[in-house]
Amino acid sequence: MKEVDSKKMWLEGYAVSEFLPHNTIDCVILGYGNHSLKVLVLKWKRGELWSLPGGYVLRSESFDQAATRILKQRTGLSSIFLKQFYTFSDPGRNRPKYSHETEIIKQILQNADLVNGDRDMDWFTKRFITTGYFALVNMQKTTPSPDFLSDRCEWKSLQEVPDLLADHNQLLQKALETLKIQLNYLPVGISLLPKRFTMKDLRLLYEAILKTNLERSNFQRKMLKLGILVRHEKQMTGAANKAPYLYSFDREKYAALIKKGTGFYFD
Amino acid sequence: MKEVDSKKMWLEGYAVSEFLPHNTIDCVILGYGNHSLKVLVLKWKRGELWSLPGGYVLRSESFDQAATRILKQRTGLSSIFLKQFYTFSDPGRNRPKYSHETEIIKQILQNADLVNGDRDMDWFTKRFITTGYFALVNMQKTTPSPDFLSDRCEWKSLQEVPDLLADHNQLLQKALETLKIQLNYLPVGISLLPKRFTMKDLRLLYEAILKTNLERSNFQRKMLKLGILVRHEKQMTGAANKAPYLYSFDREKYAALIKKGTGFYFD
Repeated sequence: MKEVDSKKMWLEGYAVSEFLPHNTIDCVILGYGNHSLKVLVLKWKRGELWSLPGGYVLRSESFDQAATRILKQRTGLSSIFLKQFYTFSDPGRNRPKYSHETEIIKQILQNADLVNGDRDMDWFTKRFITTGYFALVNMQKTTPSPDFLSDRCEWKSLQEVPDLLADHNQLLQKALETLKIQLNYLPVGISLLPKRFTMKDLRLLYEAILKTNLERSNFQRKMLKLGILVRHEKQMTGAANKAPYLYSFDREKYAALIKKGTGFYFD
Repeated sequence: MKEVDSKKMWLEGYAVSEFLPHNTIDCVILGYGNHSLKVLVLKWKRGELWSLPGGYVLRSESFDQAATRILKQRTGLSSIFLKQFYTFSDPGRNRPKYSHETEIIKQILQNADLVNGDRDMDWFTKRFITTGYFALVNMQKTTPSPDFLSDRCEWKSLQEVPDLLADHNQLLQKALETLKIQLNYLPVGISLLPKRFTMKDLRLLYEAILKTNLERSNFQRKMLKLGILVRHEKQMTGAANKAPYLYSFDREKYAALIKKGTGFYFD
């Protein structure tokens, strides 16, 4: 890959003709920390416009490569396992919903010397099909930073996600749905919890993803049945008998279960 | 939609410029019948070239609309619930693997008056990103027919699928994998089995999808636990005590389970 800075990589380093004319990538980065689930959003410069980190696809790259490059350029994040979840193709999906969307993008692009007159602006506002990628990361270990187009890059709790550019709120919903479905057949938690954690910590993680309360003892029984948890001795302090057990994941068994799945055929 | 015949709809009725230049749709239609799973493939005219039914996307349509239209045009099938499963974007994915692929496509297109010289042939062989759609249908109730580009449109058992055009074998594998994962959290069978069926019929369906043998009594226990099966009285003929029970699906409970899922949280 060419060594160029974020600004150049985004577009200026390449001619418009080097990009596929109708395909983009958008990333839904979900972060878990302090028992809650958040999503990473960018605030564009010049006014209230928020979006998911996204960008255009070079004619020479696969979508997986594009997703990794775009996430890096727009948020500084790398080494994140991105998974494709859906392609959004409504012909009107990226038509600006509000006139301020068009205005802000236009100003930003002009300011950044990205647009040469109306021809290029037409390019930006024509039909784009976007392929969504998502990841679930440990928020405490992930420090994003805004690119030259944005003045903020921050985690928003799901309750306070602003009205996002184009159909990005829909992309977020679909990613959350995908993650929820994934819990039906894959274990989760190994990279999201501290090395040792309580059963309550694990339950709160599942509850945050499923957006529901889970019955305590039922949850514990099922989790133990998966055979991926190692229970540790309580530390014998004064209140030891009241302290909850600590657990860690058996990395080998966890990895095996990722392959086998925890779904209907789990016994 | 314009009323035009299959040939015109495919391309000639539209100018090349009416299609998105880099996006296609391909359909993996899986059929179940006689206890086995098959896939629907087209044999192109003039030589041994097989492919999944696929086509180009109009600038005016969503991918869901395109998938429905393309499947209809290429196989005659309609009223099939198509589900998007993955977008394939390897930059070299539709580069012809064998020279006979290019030759056959070229001949077909020229014969069909679809190509005007090399410019259009260039259009067909440039990079295309394809979005895969799949469906699982009752083979006995589904009668496909070839379009004007193909001389056969037939069900092939998974063991005898030929070497397909471009990366279509990979598309098929990914669709099968998606279906297998889906079994972890969704019931299957209501449209694939006769109204009344034995537990063995149901098990053979699951076995065909999972490509594995399932333990008989374990399978029965789990299936009954889902609460979607109604058991019927044995018919009192001479050998009645040896006849297996017949079951049918409780449509309401089945529909509820489709919403709720049968995954990890099923109890």
